[in-house]
Amino acid sequence: MKKEEKTAKMIVQAMYDADTASQERGMKIKVIRPDHAEVTMTVRADMLNGHKTCHGGMIFALGDSAFAFAVNTGNIATVAQGAQINFLKPAFENDLLTAKAIVTHQGGRTGLCDVTITNQKGEKIAFFRGSSYRLKSQIIPDLEID
Amino acid sequence: MKKEEKTAKMIVQAMYDADTASQERGMKIKVIRPDHAEVTMTVRADMLNGHKTCHGGMIFALGDSAFAFAVNTGNIATVAQGAQINFLKPAFENDLLTAKAIVTHQGGRTGLCDVTITNQKGEKIAFFRGSSYRLKSQIIPDLEID
Amino acid sequence: MKKEEKTAKMIVQAMYDADTASQERGMKIKVIRPDHAEVTMTVRADMLNGHKTCHGGMIFALGDSAFAFAVNTGNIATVAQGAQINFLKPAFENDLLTAKAIVTHQGGRTGLCDVTITNQKGEKIAFFRGSSYRLKSQIIPDLEID
Amino acid sequence: MKKEEKTAKMIVQAMYDADTASQERGMKIKVIRPDHAEVTMTVRADMLNGHKTCHGGMIFALGDSAFAFAVNTGNIATVAQGAQINFLKPAFENDLLTAKAIVTHQGGRTGLCDVTITNQKGEKIAFFRGSSYRLKSQIIPDLEID
Repeated sequence: MKKEEKTAKMIVQAMYDADTASQERGMKIKVIRPDHAEVTMTVRADMLNGHKTCHGGMIFALGDSAFAFAVNTGNIATVAQGAQINFLKPAFENDLLTAKAIVTHQGGRTGLCDVTITNQKGEKIAFFRGSSYRLKSQIIPDLEID
Repeated sequence: MKKEEKTAKMIVQAMYDADTASQERGMKIKVIRPDHAEVTMTVRADMLNGHKTCHGGMIFALGDSAFAFAVNTGNIATVAQGAQINFLKPAFENDLLTAKAIVTHQGGRTGLCDVTITNQKGEKIAFFRGSSYRLKSQIIPDLEID
Repeated sequence: MKKEEKTAKMIVQAMYDADTASQERGMKIKVIRPDHAEVTMTVRADMLNGHKTCHGGMIFALGDSAFAFAVNTGNIATVAQGAQINFLKPAFENDLLTAKAIVTHQGGRTGLCDVTITNQKGEKIAFFRGSSYRLKSQIIPDLEID
Repeated sequence: MKKEEKTAKMIVQAMYDADTASQERGMKIKVIRPDHAEVTMTVRADMLNGHKTCHGGMIFALGDSAFAFAVNTGNIATVAQGAQINFLKPAFENDLLTAKAIVTHQGGRTGLCDVTITNQKGEKIAFFRGSSYRLKSQIIPDLEID
């Protein structure tokens, strides 16, 4: 495994270990590479809205976690300025959702990250575009990998 | 109380009663009027991300619930096409967040709704702009109010 | 050429012939296929802002025209509900910009279209995501192609 | 006139004088105050699309200019990261459009600005929300006002 990939995995694991919101919603990290993250979540009964479809906030949360992991893989602490989500299809209880996040732009301190959220049939559920901002700190200070 | 306001409250109550996602996150409905909703949520330990600030998805979820309530007050079933959120300040554990949603446009079947999310000090935490789409059904079919 | 592609080209040509805004800004249609359009524009002196870079509105206009052409290729009259643009790099006088638009989602009457705008070096200048809405009319009524 | 308002007017005038894109489209500055700008534009024949309504790019351009003026009133050079526009009603030839821009948030180097675009009847034509980024330079270096 390349050094950058190893670093990326270490950083995201450290973020996830401190991220109770993602843990409590059953999110699982599947793939981490530099500028790339794939995260899954199963839609639970307590994630449904009044139409008995997955609450938009829970779909957004999955996208937001994948976005946060992808933009932090380089160990420069990076936060969300904002995001846009488009809902394409409803998700239902027990659906297994996968969010695939890819950094598409980095210019100075600001960046963009596209996340596609699909269900277990491969159907597109939502598109998420996050806008990021780099802080002047690191996720893991003075990280060195041999 | 005017008839429209009474109708609005009945519809949103029916939506909330079926909305486990909003209930489980401790959201409380404070104000309902036609095209208007105010909803609160206290940030819990299980809503924090790795920075120990409120996960963006939980802030979005609060905005999304307020949006959903506001756009359905007229008893025309209305769903979210998408939304944009801008994060202005972090929220922390035990913060009491209030989302105030106002429908700002309705043109044919599509509409817009602005939600401002503040904390207990009145500081702005996030702006949320939702894009809605009216279906051809009602939330409470054949609702009549004397 | 397939029938759908022939139809697409006829419709977009008819749109362009009536579209003085695109013509006056020197936009040229390069590729038309169903759900796909590529349009170019050279940045002129009268398109510059106070920083002597291309005015954001002119970059948006190029993206918007490509979006409009792509979503109308099926001869169902389709209008823009709105769009989001992210500016990645400035464009300068005499730059040749290309906007490549692809419909990424169609669900009932609403759809999404992604447009990538690049300069003559292939550098990404802007991402544009348009949200469309289908009317109940046609661009060319009763179009038949043998 | 307060010093801040005088500064704001000087800066925006300097920006406008160098902004051929806004000049060529007949935009006129009506009101400038700190974090606030009002700009008008009359829809011309060369701004129409194939539906004979004002091209979305021209409406966006008006909003973008008002946004640029409002966010630069403090003499800190500020550029657009991106923007979202929602089209509410079409505009037609000879309509007089007014864009009213107000900075709604400034946090560190990033900010937000809301622009409402109306026609001569006061009808809302579009909402525009711009996302700004402060550079480390000034519009007018070493500006001093007695």
